[in-house]
Amino acid sequence: MQTVNDEAQPLPRGLWADRYELSMAWVYWRQGRAEEPAVFDYFFRTLPFGGGYATFAGAATLVTALQQFQFDQVQLDFLRQEGFDPEFLEYLRSFRFRGSIWMPPEGEPVFPLEPVARVEGGLLESQLIETLLLNVLNFQTLIATKAARCRDAARGRVVSEFGLRRAQGLGGRWASRAACIGGCSSTSNLDAAQVYGLPSVGTMAHAFVQSYEDELEAFRAFAAVHGSNTVLLLDTYDTLESGLPNAITVAKELAARGQRLAGVRLDSGDLAHLARAVRQALDAAGLHEVKIIASNQLDEYVIRSLLEQEAPIDVFGVGTALAAGLPDGALDGVYKLALCGGKPRMKRADGLAKQTLPGRKTVSRYRDADGWFRADAIHLADEPPPDRMVDPRDPTRRLALGQWQPEPLLRPVLQNGQLVAPLPDVQAAAAYARQRAQCLPPEHRRFENPHLYKVGISPRLAALRDELLRPWLEKQVP
Amino acid sequence: MQTVNDEAQPLPRGLWADRYELSMAWVYWRQGRAEEPAVFDYFFRTLPFGGGYATFAGAATLVTALQQFQFDQVQLDFLRQEGFDPEFLEYLRSFRFRGSIWMPPEGEPVFPLEPVARVEGGLLESQLIETLLLNVLNFQTLIATKAARCRDAARGRVVSEFGLRRAQGLGGRWASRAACIGGCSSTSNLDAAQVYGLPSVGTMAHAFVQSYEDELEAFRAFAAVHGSNTVLLLDTYDTLESGLPNAITVAKELAARGQRLAGVRLDSGDLAHLARAVRQALDAAGLHEVKIIASNQLDEYVIRSLLEQEAPIDVFGVGTALAAGLPDGALDGVYKLALCGGKPRMKRADGLAKQTLPGRKTVSRYRDADGWFRADAIHLADEPPPDRMVDPRDPTRRLALGQWQPEPLLRPVLQNGQLVAPLPDVQAAAAYARQRAQCLPPEHRRFENPHLYKVGISPRLAALRDELLRPWLEKQVP
Repeated sequence: MQTVNDEAQPLPRGLWADRYELSMAWVYWRQGRAEEPAVFDYFFRTLPFGGGYATFAGAATLVTALQQFQFDQVQLDFLRQEGFDPEFLEYLRSFRFRGSIWMPPEGEPVFPLEPVARVEGGLLESQLIETLLLNVLNFQTLIATKAARCRDAARGRVVSEFGLRRAQGLGGRWASRAACIGGCSSTSNLDAAQVYGLPSVGTMAHAFVQSYEDELEAFRAFAAVHGSNTVLLLDTYDTLESGLPNAITVAKELAARGQRLAGVRLDSGDLAHLARAVRQALDAAGLHEVKIIASNQLDEYVIRSLLEQEAPIDVFGVGTALAAGLPDGALDGVYKLALCGGKPRMKRADGLAKQTLPGRKTVSRYRDADGWFRADAIHLADEPPPDRMVDPRDPTRRLALGQWQPEPLLRPVLQNGQLVAPLPDVQAAAAYARQRAQCLPPEHRRFENPHLYKVGISPRLAALRDELLRPWLEKQVP
Repeated sequence: MQTVNDEAQPLPRGLWADRYELSMAWVYWRQGRAEEPAVFDYFFRTLPFGGGYATFAGAATLVTALQQFQFDQVQLDFLRQEGFDPEFLEYLRSFRFRGSIWMPPEGEPVFPLEPVARVEGGLLESQLIETLLLNVLNFQTLIATKAARCRDAARGRVVSEFGLRRAQGLGGRWASRAACIGGCSSTSNLDAAQVYGLPSVGTMAHAFVQSYEDELEAFRAFAAVHGSNTVLLLDTYDTLESGLPNAITVAKELAARGQRLAGVRLDSGDLAHLARAVRQALDAAGLHEVKIIASNQLDEYVIRSLLEQEAPIDVFGVGTALAAGLPDGALDGVYKLALCGGKPRMKRADGLAKQTLPGRKTVSRYRDADGWFRADAIHLADEPPPDRMVDPRDPTRRLALGQWQPEPLLRPVLQNGQLVAPLPDVQAAAAYARQRAQCLPPEHRRFENPHLYKVGISPRLAALRDELLRPWLEKQVP
């Protein structure tokens, strides 16, 4: 179960919303439509980073936030000043989210166009949580996706998240959480480590070394306190001429006391060249177990390049690009009404590419006999997994599914506001992410022009969409 | 004075830190160095977005966070589990930040390499706040800079921040704050509006329109509740064929009741073309005062393009690119030790470009007789503003300053942990930002290849740096 110390570290509450959600809610309340059954879908249109898959994250954060979602007196007073109806505010005072949500487990590979969350509930509550849901899922999925790319690039070496100083303000907390789901073994961020139970790591700043009269004195002072947890930063003055020999001196002094130097950190210069020289010198001094940690503007491409050069780096510390999910910086997820008043609903768009899908839907994932993921089909929740599907953007493209075994992608998480089952913690989600990514054929995981994973819609869903489109099409071509 | 409802909306406290800060603090504490006087500089190396200036933001957030910075029992228990010394944790229990900080006012144009914050205090406290300071100032300055670019592009039209759904999680709160400092008139984000007293705005979602049997019914329902605050979203089905005529119908119905439609919103399609058609139809119906609000993937370049096309848009709603500060997504600010134990300190770098500047420094801004900003000089705090300066990266480039009038860029904000003077609120900072940007010659404000604003160092500072460099240079060339 997710442990969140929510007194000291609250999640966003009632006002974590765009104003329009409250404006619409007021209308629904006034017209007695608050409880009208509605279904919304969350999905994204574009895979971030030009990659072949995204890694879903944020479910536990969202659910915890929804369970404590309410309006306190300060917020109600604020809304009153903003002109909201006092009677409506009395309704909001007792508002709690009592809807239901289906999502994949955190760590699941997910793809464009398919519903990654389905929200069912009263029209008012389902609309009110739009921005909260988007804010949590868009960001955490972006970061988990980036972390999975770094993990894939690191081919089994350790990746640690070092980005809090360049993270987007308070966004740093969820960045570290999602990074650890996506593939990081640890974080430098103590706040996230405490709130989410993540392993934390840390070395020293250049300022630490500079604050002493010489580097050796600084290294000795650090090792005297941290013993076998000591990691020494080598590049304050000169990595090979100064940092390295001083680190070897301290490593030997630690060894003489029955301790051992944990690692050295490279933070500038040509990391491949320096890592080789440092490894060689450490090995020559018998310090085979001292790890080399590299940082400085790393991302999945630099990690791949360093490993192609066989740089003997044990741990990659990835900062800015990971914690801020760069270069994309955002996932384009949207939240669209699919059913209301018992009828399927659809936003009209120019062309099939941006056309939303109507009705209460679910997603089945098809696996072949070897367990590989082969395709995902979006279909109506009341039909069985289909045996064929069509491309939602191009009805001439079809795929037979009968040879594969379907499994449900979306699982109930909240039912009428209540948690259906305990949510996996970050460690469990990370293990799940690793295991599920391995079920994805390698052509979807490569960095350059990954093969497009097939997502389609069932023939029944296609027929429903076409039926709803017909009146508009007939209007346009009289 | 900044008003922050900090019970419901706490700022980050003690653990908003990278682990290494606590690791170093433990060593300083153990060695009795906690109170050793130290000076740190915050500065960045690269202007974001290829622009000619950055807009400083985050000061009030930082100061409020520092004033309530402490470790609670949950955090101390966590650190104990992580292996920190119980006696050191007792020290942390009573820890409060008692240092001093100099910064420019929020909204100030600032430039690469110059100290944008100087922190003085005990070595331990000054180092402990590194990540907190970087996290706040890097992010808010990034966003304020982006917002100022949007404001500059909008040439007097209104820019509103609409990004919470794509903001980086909890980072959305400060994004809206900084956007309003940098140049937005309002935000869609109710949380930030409440916490920081910002004007909030909102329209309606496509889902609202879809939830009714037809669009006109939806528009009427909204107008019945929101009266003269009604903004109608035109593109759920067809902007010109359906949304626009329905909006005109509702505008006339409102007028018949003595109210008036506030605006219409365009959120897809060719915004220039649609805005012209909508304006024409509104004007033809006598609805001259109805505003046109445009959104959908806007940024400063799209705004500029729309205005070049003379699109009659009154309000630009800028979302993702603004709230996440894209495409850069991060400001590269760093925090470097400049003085410790009474001695100037410097990190050694390969080449002058990344060489830090030693000593207790300040910055003077030089203005010409017409009030234009002409140059900034970094100099030692105990020397008067210099009458000439040199380029820190190229000592052959010099500039005479005698013809201009210096003014201090950095002002005392905290002294020994106490606020020196009330901090301006967001509205005041926004007014200051607008006024100060107008003192910047236009060649620094253009988007393409802006002219480089000159930042130099005083001859005395250059001499100090060279003196500290000498031993290394002599070592390298024996």
